[in-house]
Amino acid sequence: MLRRVLCTMFFMGALPSPAEMSQGHISVVLLGATGDLAKKYLWQGLFQLYMDQVSSGHSFTFHGAALTALEPGQKMMFDVLKKLACPPDEAPDRCAVLKDQFLKLSQYHQLKTAENYTVLNREIEVLLRQEGLKEAGRIFYFSVPPFAYTEIARHINSSCRPPPGAWLRVVLEKPFGHDLESAQQLAAELTSFFREEEMYRVDHYLGKQAVAHILPFRDQNQEFLDPIWNRHHVERVEIVLKEVVDAKGRTSFYEQYGVIRDVLQNHLTEALMFLTMELPANLSRTEEVLQCKLQALRSLRGLEKHSAVLGQYQAYASHVQEELKKGQDYVSTTPTFAGVLVQSDSLRWEGVPFLLTSGKALDERVGYVRVLFKNRAYCTQSETLRDAGHSQCKAKQIIFYIGHGALNTPAVLVSRNLFRPVMPKSSWREVVGQPELHVFGQPLSDYYVYSPVKERDAYSVLISNIYHGRKDFFITTENLLASWAFWTPLLNSISRQPPRLYPGGVENQNLLDFEMVSGELAFTAAEPVELLHPDRSMPSDFKTIQSKFRQSPLVSMWSEDLISQLASDVEKAANRAVAGSGQFHLALSGGSSPVALFQRLARHHYAFPWRHTHIWLVDERCVPLTDPESNFFSLHSHLLQSIRVPYFNVHPMPVHLNQRLCVEEDGGTELYAKEIAALVANSSFDLVLLGLGTDGHTASLFPDSEDGLEGTRAVVLTESPIKPHQRMSFSLSLINKARQVFVLVVGKGKHDITTQISRVGRQPRKWPISGVSPSSGQLVWYVDYEALLG
Amino acid sequence: MLRRVLCTMFFMGALPSPAEMSQGHISVVLLGATGDLAKKYLWQGLFQLYMDQVSSGHSFTFHGAALTALEPGQKMMFDVLKKLACPPDEAPDRCAVLKDQFLKLSQYHQLKTAENYTVLNREIEVLLRQEGLKEAGRIFYFSVPPFAYTEIARHINSSCRPPPGAWLRVVLEKPFGHDLESAQQLAAELTSFFREEEMYRVDHYLGKQAVAHILPFRDQNQEFLDPIWNRHHVERVEIVLKEVVDAKGRTSFYEQYGVIRDVLQNHLTEALMFLTMELPANLSRTEEVLQCKLQALRSLRGLEKHSAVLGQYQAYASHVQEELKKGQDYVSTTPTFAGVLVQSDSLRWEGVPFLLTSGKALDERVGYVRVLFKNRAYCTQSETLRDAGHSQCKAKQIIFYIGHGALNTPAVLVSRNLFRPVMPKSSWREVVGQPELHVFGQPLSDYYVYSPVKERDAYSVLISNIYHGRKDFFITTENLLASWAFWTPLLNSISRQPPRLYPGGVENQNLLDFEMVSGELAFTAAEPVELLHPDRSMPSDFKTIQSKFRQSPLVSMWSEDLISQLASDVEKAANRAVAGSGQFHLALSGGSSPVALFQRLARHHYAFPWRHTHIWLVDERCVPLTDPESNFFSLHSHLLQSIRVPYFNVHPMPVHLNQRLCVEEDGGTELYAKEIAALVANSSFDLVLLGLGTDGHTASLFPDSEDGLEGTRAVVLTESPIKPHQRMSFSLSLINKARQVFVLVVGKGKHDITTQISRVGRQPRKWPISGVSPSSGQLVWYVDYEALLG
Repeated sequence: MLRRVLCTMFFMGALPSPAEMSQGHISVVLLGATGDLAKKYLWQGLFQLYMDQVSSGHSFTFHGAALTALEPGQKMMFDVLKKLACPPDEAPDRCAVLKDQFLKLSQYHQLKTAENYTVLNREIEVLLRQEGLKEAGRIFYFSVPPFAYTEIARHINSSCRPPPGAWLRVVLEKPFGHDLESAQQLAAELTSFFREEEMYRVDHYLGKQAVAHILPFRDQNQEFLDPIWNRHHVERVEIVLKEVVDAKGRTSFYEQYGVIRDVLQNHLTEALMFLTMELPANLSRTEEVLQCKLQALRSLRGLEKHSAVLGQYQAYASHVQEELKKGQDYVSTTPTFAGVLVQSDSLRWEGVPFLLTSGKALDERVGYVRVLFKNRAYCTQSETLRDAGHSQCKAKQIIFYIGHGALNTPAVLVSRNLFRPVMPKSSWREVVGQPELHVFGQPLSDYYVYSPVKERDAYSVLISNIYHGRKDFFITTENLLASWAFWTPLLNSISRQPPRLYPGGVENQNLLDFEMVSGELAFTAAEPVELLHPDRSMPSDFKTIQSKFRQSPLVSMWSEDLISQLASDVEKAANRAVAGSGQFHLALSGGSSPVALFQRLARHHYAFPWRHTHIWLVDERCVPLTDPESNFFSLHSHLLQSIRVPYFNVHPMPVHLNQRLCVEEDGGTELYAKEIAALVANSSFDLVLLGLGTDGHTASLFPDSEDGLEGTRAVVLTESPIKPHQRMSFSLSLINKARQVFVLVVGKGKHDITTQISRVGRQPRKWPISGVSPSSGQLVWYVDYEALLG
Repeated sequence: MLRRVLCTMFFMGALPSPAEMSQGHISVVLLGATGDLAKKYLWQGLFQLYMDQVSSGHSFTFHGAALTALEPGQKMMFDVLKKLACPPDEAPDRCAVLKDQFLKLSQYHQLKTAENYTVLNREIEVLLRQEGLKEAGRIFYFSVPPFAYTEIARHINSSCRPPPGAWLRVVLEKPFGHDLESAQQLAAELTSFFREEEMYRVDHYLGKQAVAHILPFRDQNQEFLDPIWNRHHVERVEIVLKEVVDAKGRTSFYEQYGVIRDVLQNHLTEALMFLTMELPANLSRTEEVLQCKLQALRSLRGLEKHSAVLGQYQAYASHVQEELKKGQDYVSTTPTFAGVLVQSDSLRWEGVPFLLTSGKALDERVGYVRVLFKNRAYCTQSETLRDAGHSQCKAKQIIFYIGHGALNTPAVLVSRNLFRPVMPKSSWREVVGQPELHVFGQPLSDYYVYSPVKERDAYSVLISNIYHGRKDFFITTENLLASWAFWTPLLNSISRQPPRLYPGGVENQNLLDFEMVSGELAFTAAEPVELLHPDRSMPSDFKTIQSKFRQSPLVSMWSEDLISQLASDVEKAANRAVAGSGQFHLALSGGSSPVALFQRLARHHYAFPWRHTHIWLVDERCVPLTDPESNFFSLHSHLLQSIRVPYFNVHPMPVHLNQRLCVEEDGGTELYAKEIAALVANSSFDLVLLGLGTDGHTASLFPDSEDGLEGTRAVVLTESPIKPHQRMSFSLSLINKARQVFVLVVGKGKHDITTQISRVGRQPRKWPISGVSPSSGQLVWYVDYEALLG
């Protein structure tokens, strides 16, 4: 069959001679050849590839494969192939000839058993031998459900690898797991069959022309963008995919995934990376691009529960009940709408809000990436007299318009008061017209607008990139796992959270509008009562237990809420102290529990009176301060480096004097006690924050400690049962002088000791924590549900 | 005459009986009774006062006074009084009667000699005795040029003070000086005649209804404003007074003052204070209000040359030439337009730009104070479908509209998506209408709009406040001097700067638009060449001398430009070092010259790689680090507290070990040398910044120092000829290991030593600075014109 085709090609004149075919032969195997995706996009993409590359020096064969037996499968596949369209920019004559050739180069295979794969491999080998062609490579496109991946991968690996010298590329479609763990597992399985460079994970957003042009745009417009592509100039970024359709007919998939896994974790995150990554020196160096992207992904600040607002269209419940045969009492918390505030800790982007939004059953179908710049100008002339086109007082934005919506085409928009962008003339052309159309608050005439010379669907673009080996258009294993590592904590923390219900379509009105409030997101409008489904009970929200624990007030919630509460209580204490004495003396403990508190204070408490706060350490490990094991180092990384406490107000423990650690004669404990006495009135701290160890220790006061549990010394050296053994610590005597003491206890691991000490009296030698009892101050316990209830 | 009036009043029925007149009598003396201001505003204001207060229990007489002889003066004054208007909100009958009374209560006096004042005083006393009235107080309104102030003040003080128990209020009109020095002088003179509480300095902006309502508005809307009236929510504030008129006919005044002294130093600064000051607990406590205002004024960040953009309308030159009889070669640099970026260092406002703008010959007459809030919302619904009135995605603003412009009335505007403000119903009413009118980028229907129930001109408001003793509506001496202290450095630094010429009116187009760029202002558009007056030579702008000094590169400019240049060279060095080794080791000297550099780095170099910078001290005084004399303390106040250098990267000199200062045995110098050796490769700093003393010292290496000038010790203890004597310092040996050494020399005081050392060879014992000669690094001299040229 191939022989015949090559003959036909000779007559075409424009087509290459066999001598030019020296690049070798490529076999494309499309698994799932008769499925929806194949029908809708993949065959058309392969046909496009053929049209584009017929003169490239490569020869091709296309192998459709499915589980269906040969004859019916063959018929189904050729029904699809017959309908392949000629693109409008292709000469109809040439296209007709090429389509004919494409059909002749395509054949169907049933691929079910190991035997089938062996046969396919043999057929390819025989064909190539017959035609005297060198093999360039094989593409296996997995358009099949993920549960089938492993078996297919095993068969390909064992029976269908091309001979040495030719490449193998396997193309995988999402979902690539459900969370970090499942993604790791799937990745590990695939890695046992394929090398990293053989795997092409598709995110079809990377084939969207506007998304694919973000990096080239940044590269080609460096001159203009360099000064402004950073936190000093960018006010915010919106990355949005709105859909009108709902999940009807797809709930078996959707109910397990929801909008964050379906759209945000992959498509919107990829677009975000193209915006935030550092620009590699050379965009054509795939490895550099991927490294920069990975780095950008890893510098994202961790998400918290309140980083997101979630919605679910009202009819979703009935769709789920119908399609999944669930009872009336089944309640789904799967979000069909999400807005997420993402922030980067990179020097370039620190503090810039990236708003990722997607949802089903919204008022319009549109996708865009919008970069809004800060308005730094004052225009002296009155508005009515200003030059319409170029006023510096108008909004400045750059928009990568992915498609649909008012423009109904992919486009790149740049405000005219920014700069006229450099665009590659061969692929993007300037659009003039529709000046009255308003987009993003301004008439279209306020922008330079470019749209693609040839509109290409994402799969055509991606298939071309697979052919060219452009791995930077695909998701590497590292990239995938970093993305899941970023999204999984949010997914876990919201799994219990009931989404806001919305009616769908234009009726949503402002119900899904949301706002940023000190680093968190919240819906703007209060939830209207009438919208809540009357018969539907939602999973109960978190309750706060407020009670007593060891005769002192107890605050208990789920850990994230507990930390929020504690942080705002600390801020209240700070404001009270500063209002009273002009300063706030805060003593903080080491360990892992307070880290969440430090982060919370750094990220959400912008009005905290840091300039008037003195920070002390309750205890320290005898290591240098710059050692990551040091409590001070942890405090610095998670809090101090993000806030502004005067240098003089920071008081690390002097564990490292005279180049040695915690030597009695160096007098570190006396030095610290003196410093406290000199600055803190009566050595009475405004607030001491303590933790609780599983052995009942607090600060670095361990059971049976020789020092610190009794007596009046303020600061003591102690021994920890775990490494590093040597510690410096506040004594109980010093702690008990404080005006307020907060004890934070978090996690299941603390349940036993929490239960234990709830029952015992004052026995500090056995349970040091039981000796905490401020003589005239207040003690409050912050214990999360897991520690309290197990 | 008074008796007759009182009789008339009995017949009016509504007017008070003599028994009610128990509040006593008030004599108002208007000096300059026939001048322009008196004609236009003051008599009308006094008449309004009379109408408002006729039933208050006070009786009044009004004494017009001028230098003119009695008869012509009398005639001129009564010509003015006859034209007094009845306000539209007053019943015409009542007004006619009251006007008649007012005329009868008014009389003219020639006040020229000391004798005249004595006579006036006697007349008032006699009148009161005749009528059996107790004296409540006297108001002297100075509507005269400031050069006459002192003499009039002396006469009043010596001859016209009311008897004990009655108050004296003298009302003064601006200008109150020309800069800080002249204002201090004038204030000192006045203070020798009057007590602070007797002086009422008028800024008529404080009588503008919209300005006067800023504080009450903030007070009455605390519930809504408390969370948002701060740097976290306010994006920027614009305080604007635009005029259409030019300075023609007033250049004899204007040429000496210019727009900053005429409008910004007083009117716009006062409005700024009402916005930024902390709200006192009780607005009716004048003293508290004034204290809060003063505090706000003092927390403004100092202005620099580039804090302002300046313009001059083109015809101004010819106006000056004509009116001041100046020759063709006279060049005026007086600005008739200014935009100034003001910032506050208060916790509430840090980082928020306040743009103060005023100018003559602009396109429209308008005054407003506009507070624009940050947009924190994302609206999920497409623009076309959003609820027009309340979308959270529309701009949020509060505008105090002073008058004229599109609205042509004083008004308070609050975006409907913010809140519905509480407004006192008796004095402000909601306005509905003109929904199509656009103001500040939005239709009027987007705002709640309020205008005064009765429109009052500023002088009526102020005269009423003088009567009520509301000193918070006037400028205290402290307030005045603090304002001049704030503005004078800018006025000095721009006195040589040629303003941008603008054609005037609508032709200005975007020529006066300006932008904020890293804490400075700059015009947006390049200056069009054709606008520059071809025959007119402008004062030459600053040039940079780039040359050699002691065989090393020399950079010389005026000091402010020099500091800017040095700061950006330091940043360049930092970026180069960080790109190379990942860190930047910067050693800084103490003393006063580097302070300007520290401030420059803190305020304008937002992208400085501080996180990767280590900061070391070149020298230190042997005092505790928290002592204001300490070099580290100064470095901390002017730089460290504004930036984010990791705690571990800050390396103060260990001058304070074991509770004592610079004791040899404590080994501070060895400790510092060890720290350097441990962290800085080869102890070779990336950059060492030095100064130069008038005795030729640098770092703390003084002439004939025993240590540090020779030998290889890195850090040494030295003795300074001036207190505090003990110092710790880098040695020449350590300095000369650096990769770059910058020496900064600023000020006339350094001219002699600069000249001296330009001529000498290497003689470090005599001139320590001459020993600075990096062995393989680069030395650059930064010497300002004053130091270089004297």
